[in-house]
Amino acid sequence: MINQKNVQLGRVRSAIRELFEYGKKRKAQIGEENVFDFSLGNPSVPAPAEVKEELERLVCTSDPVFLHGYTSAQGDYSVRKAIADDLNARFGAGLNADCLYMTCGAAASLCITLNALVVQGDEVITFAPFFPEYSVFAAHAGAKLVPVQSDPVTFQPDLAAFEGALGARTKAVIINSPNNPSGVVYTEQTIKALADIIARHEQRTGNAVYLVSDEPYRELVFDSATKVPFITNFCARSIVCYSYSKSLSLPGERIGYIAVNPAMQEFEEVYAGICGAGRSLGYVCAPNLFQQLVKAVTGKTSDISVYKTNRDLLCSALTDYGYTVVRPDGAFYLFVKALEEDAQKFADRAKEYELLLVPSDSFGVKGYVRISYCVDTDMIKRSLPAFLKLAESYRK
Amino acid sequence: MINQKNVQLGRVRSAIRELFEYGKKRKAQIGEENVFDFSLGNPSVPAPAEVKEELERLVCTSDPVFLHGYTSAQGDYSVRKAIADDLNARFGAGLNADCLYMTCGAAASLCITLNALVVQGDEVITFAPFFPEYSVFAAHAGAKLVPVQSDPVTFQPDLAAFEGALGARTKAVIINSPNNPSGVVYTEQTIKALADIIARHEQRTGNAVYLVSDEPYRELVFDSATKVPFITNFCARSIVCYSYSKSLSLPGERIGYIAVNPAMQEFEEVYAGICGAGRSLGYVCAPNLFQQLVKAVTGKTSDISVYKTNRDLLCSALTDYGYTVVRPDGAFYLFVKALEEDAQKFADRAKEYELLLVPSDSFGVKGYVRISYCVDTDMIKRSLPAFLKLAESYRK
Repeated sequence: MINQKNVQLGRVRSAIRELFEYGKKRKAQIGEENVFDFSLGNPSVPAPAEVKEELERLVCTSDPVFLHGYTSAQGDYSVRKAIADDLNARFGAGLNADCLYMTCGAAASLCITLNALVVQGDEVITFAPFFPEYSVFAAHAGAKLVPVQSDPVTFQPDLAAFEGALGARTKAVIINSPNNPSGVVYTEQTIKALADIIARHEQRTGNAVYLVSDEPYRELVFDSATKVPFITNFCARSIVCYSYSKSLSLPGERIGYIAVNPAMQEFEEVYAGICGAGRSLGYVCAPNLFQQLVKAVTGKTSDISVYKTNRDLLCSALTDYGYTVVRPDGAFYLFVKALEEDAQKFADRAKEYELLLVPSDSFGVKGYVRISYCVDTDMIKRSLPAFLKLAESYRK
Repeated sequence: MINQKNVQLGRVRSAIRELFEYGKKRKAQIGEENVFDFSLGNPSVPAPAEVKEELERLVCTSDPVFLHGYTSAQGDYSVRKAIADDLNARFGAGLNADCLYMTCGAAASLCITLNALVVQGDEVITFAPFFPEYSVFAAHAGAKLVPVQSDPVTFQPDLAAFEGALGARTKAVIINSPNNPSGVVYTEQTIKALADIIARHEQRTGNAVYLVSDEPYRELVFDSATKVPFITNFCARSIVCYSYSKSLSLPGERIGYIAVNPAMQEFEEVYAGICGAGRSLGYVCAPNLFQQLVKAVTGKTSDISVYKTNRDLLCSALTDYGYTVVRPDGAFYLFVKALEEDAQKFADRAKEYELLLVPSDSFGVKGYVRISYCVDTDMIKRSLPAFLKLAESYRK
C-alpha cells in the first residue's frame, strides 16, 4: 500500500485545472475563438525585453561552469544582496543578503516556510478567499489550515473573526495581497490591525505566531496611489514568500525567494529551519541562470498595462449588465457575484455561453466566480455578449 | 517552538560542505594553488557546445510566453516523449511519455518518489556507501533508512545481507550506480540478483517493494565495455530517478526526471502518487527553459574524457604510493582506504598536507576517504607529492 494521501492528490485535479482541460477539449470542438477561457492565472504578456537581453548575454558571455553550477543552498550571495538592496530602496524593508533564501517559486517558498515553522498538529490561519493549494501545503507540513472569512463587501480580512480564530496551536497566518482570487489589496490599516491582534495574542499566550505574506502579485497594481504594505515594516515575526512568475512573466522557470525579517528575536533559528526544510523537501538550490537573471533585472516588471485595460473593460461592462463585482486594485483576477446561490451551478450555466469561470467554492467562499483576465483584450471584447446573455438568462 | 528537526538540519552542515568551507578559508590564507581540494562533486567540465547553442536559440527565437510559461505538472508532453524515445533507443527501456515526470533534479526526483511510496513507519533499504542526504529524504517522507553493507572488495551489494534486511515494512530499495562515493558500477548480475531477491520477498510476504535507481552518473562511464543496466529491463516495480546535473554539467539548473516502469501492475496508482507528492512538496513544474533544452540534446553529454584522464592518473599514482583504491568504472569519485582505522583522523592528517578528502563515515562506511576528481588535471598532478608525503608519514 503506497501513500494514499498523495495518490488521491495526484488523481484529483484542482477545479481550475479541470475547467482548463474542459476548455482545451471544447476549443478543439468548436474553434479556439469561440471559447472564452478565463480559467488560468497564466501571464499573457511576455517577459520584459531586459529578460531576453540578459538571458542572451548570460548564456553567450558567462563561464558555463559558473553559470550552470551549484550555488549555496540559500542562493548566490551577490543575487541575494542585489534583491535585499532593491527591497530596501523601494520599501525600506530592513533586509540584508543573509535574510534571503532563493527558491523555485512561490509554492516552494510557502512549502519550505511552513515545513520550517510547523510542528505536527499546529494550525495555520488564512483568509478566504484563498489559493486552494494552501490546504495541500499546510497538510503536508503537518498543520490544519483554518480559513477566516473576509468582509463581504471590501474583502479585507474580518478582524473580529481573526481574533477569535487565533488559538493555542496557531503557528502562522498566511496573507495574500494583491489577492488571488479577489484582486483586493490589503490596506496599511489592515496590516497594522493584523499585526496588533497577533501581538496581543502573543503577549497573552506567550506563543510566537508568524505572519507569512505570499506575494507573487506585489508588482501587479494598477494605480500609483495603491501601495502594497511591506510586512517587515509592521510585524517583527514576518516572512515574505515571493515569486517572479507574475512580475516578470516567468511562471514556468520557478524562481522566487523567502525573506525572513531580521527584526525577529529568533531570526537565526527560523532561517536555519528554512535551510533545513529546503533540504528535507529536496530543494538543492534555485535555478542558477534565473538567479543571475533576477539579479540583473531587480525591480523590473513586464508591461502590465494590458491587465489594467482588461480590468477596466470587464468591470465597466459587467457592472452595466447587472453583475456585482469586487473592483480589484491588483493581480489579474476579478471576483464576480454569481447570479444564483450555487456558484458551481452558475459556472455550469456560464459554460452554455462558452464562458469558463472558476466557481469560488475551492477558494473557500460560496457564491462567486473568479475571472482570470490575463488574456487577450480582444477575447474579452468578444466575450461581452456572452456575459450579457448569461445575465439576461437569469432575468427571464 | 518551531520545527526543531529542520532547524537542526539547517544548522548542521554536511561533512562535505564543512570541508569545502574550510577549503575556501585555507585558499584565502595560503593561495588557491596550494590547496588540493577534492571535496565537492561539482562538474569541472563545461556543458557541451550544443547546450549553449540551444539555449541561445531558444531564448532568441521562441515565443517567451510559451518558453517561460507553466508546463503541466508532469512536464511538457513533447519533452517527455523525446526522453522516452531516447531511453527506448539506447536501453530498450519500454517507456512512453506518460511514464515520465519532469523534476528539479535528482534530489527532487528522490524526494517526490519517496513521498509517493512511503507510509509513516516504512523502511527504505540502501547500500553503503551511500549519498548522505538519503537519510534526510527518507526521514522527511516518514521512513527509516536501512543501510546494507557492500562487499568490502568489489563494493557490489552484499546479497545475503540484503536478503536479511528485507522486512515487513520495507517499501523501497535505493540503488546508486555508478556509485557516489565509490565510483563502482553495479553489474547486470548484481541487478538481476537484487530483482530476484525482491521478487522472492514479495511472493513470500505479499508486500510490494519498489527498486528506485538514483542515476545522475549513468552517462559517466569510462569504457565502452562498461554497461549500466537499465532497471526497467530487470524489475517491474522499478523507478528511475535521473538528473542532468552531471551528464550535461548543469548542476545549478535543477533539471531531471522520474521514470516509472509501466510494466508494474499498479502503474496508474504509483504515477498518481508521484503527481500528488510533487504537489505536496511545492513542485509546480520543472524549469521550462531547461525542459525545452534537454528535449533538444537528449543523449548528449559533456566531454567526460578529462574525468577518465584524472581517474587513470590518480589510480596509478596512489597505487604506486601504497594506497588501496577501489578502481572506479564511472562517476568522478575515487574511494581510497584510509591509512589508519579512523577515516576522520586520516582526513585530518591529510589536511596537514593541504589535501581535502571526505572521510567515509557520513557515507555509512568506516575507514575510507572519497576523492572527487572532477577537478583540473593540473591540480591532481600538483597534489601527487602531497599524497606521497601523506603515505610516507604513516611509514615512519
